[in-house]
Amino acid sequence: MGQQTIRILGIDPGLRRTGWGVIDMRGTSLSFVAAGTVTSDAKRDLATRLVELHDGLADIVERQAPHEAAVEQTFVNRDATATLKLGQARGIALLVPAARGIGVAEYAPNLVKKTVVGSGHGDKKQIRMMVAVLLPKAKVETDDAADALAIAITHAHHRVSRLIAAAGA
Amino acid sequence: MGQQTIRILGIDPGLRRTGWGVIDMRGTSLSFVAAGTVTSDAKRDLATRLVELHDGLADIVERQAPHEAAVEQTFVNRDATATLKLGQARGIALLVPAARGIGVAEYAPNLVKKTVVGSGHGDKKQIRMMVAVLLPKAKVETDDAADALAIAITHAHHRVSRLIAAAGA
Repeated sequence: MGQQTIRILGIDPGLRRTGWGVIDMRGTSLSFVAAGTVTSDAKRDLATRLVELHDGLADIVERQAPHEAAVEQTFVNRDATATLKLGQARGIALLVPAARGIGVAEYAPNLVKKTVVGSGHGDKKQIRMMVAVLLPKAKVETDDAADALAIAITHAHHRVSRLIAAAGA
Repeated sequence: MGQQTIRILGIDPGLRRTGWGVIDMRGTSLSFVAAGTVTSDAKRDLATRLVELHDGLADIVERQAPHEAAVEQTFVNRDATATLKLGQARGIALLVPAARGIGVAEYAPNLVKKTVVGSGHGDKKQIRMMVAVLLPKAKVETDDAADALAIAITHAHHRVSRLIAAAGA
């Protein structure tokens, strides 16, 4: 377990707004790199909107060069039309890093909340506040970007847990 | 309205199997070009499977060079987990042609059945039979490929209807 820096991209997928956040992990210490939101134009047709999301995320992967990626798993207890829309956006979010050879982990929303807030029932405000505490230099302008950073933090945490478990085994 | 040939790619998206079918339209006459199925390995992780679908479809678009594409709209009355899976595969099916500047139309399953079988309640067997009647030279080895050809035929039909409506207006 060296002290190399691992750069992690977190993605919170959505058709209208996909949040993204990049952190660096050195040992167990985390630092903010960048975060933002990729949007698609609701007036355009679905295929064009998916291309907008794809190109936006591809640009981020190109510029930020993450080593690993993590995508939020999706609530499937909404209505079917919303689930389908989210599924389509989520397909793009999984595709972009994977097509570039970057491993993609998936985490359930409850696990993200539990990791970042300490309980599975944190709301968006609490997530945003805890992201600011864990990454004091983070410039986070939207809830989607905060969620994406929370997903990246969750991956960092579980990555370390796996390494410790493997070392102790 | 010249007699130029329009090549149409139909896609029936699915995570495990995505059917595809290509036809040429010259005036109102249709001819079979190619059809098949892109599969993803159910043993691999979701992101990798989406890359498999993406690369398979990208290869078909590259080789067949369609002018237009059509994708089946999705039943959203299944269970949410199935809807989400389908949504993810469908996102890729819409992305691949659109990212290459090819217009993508969407048709509801009932409209595809009505166009090809003559009723909104045709089953897979009837669709396959009617595709064989409408495209006598078609080599169709799977139901998914037959569905994809039916979607391409539906697009050809509605494309002509739109042109006639525009000419008469």
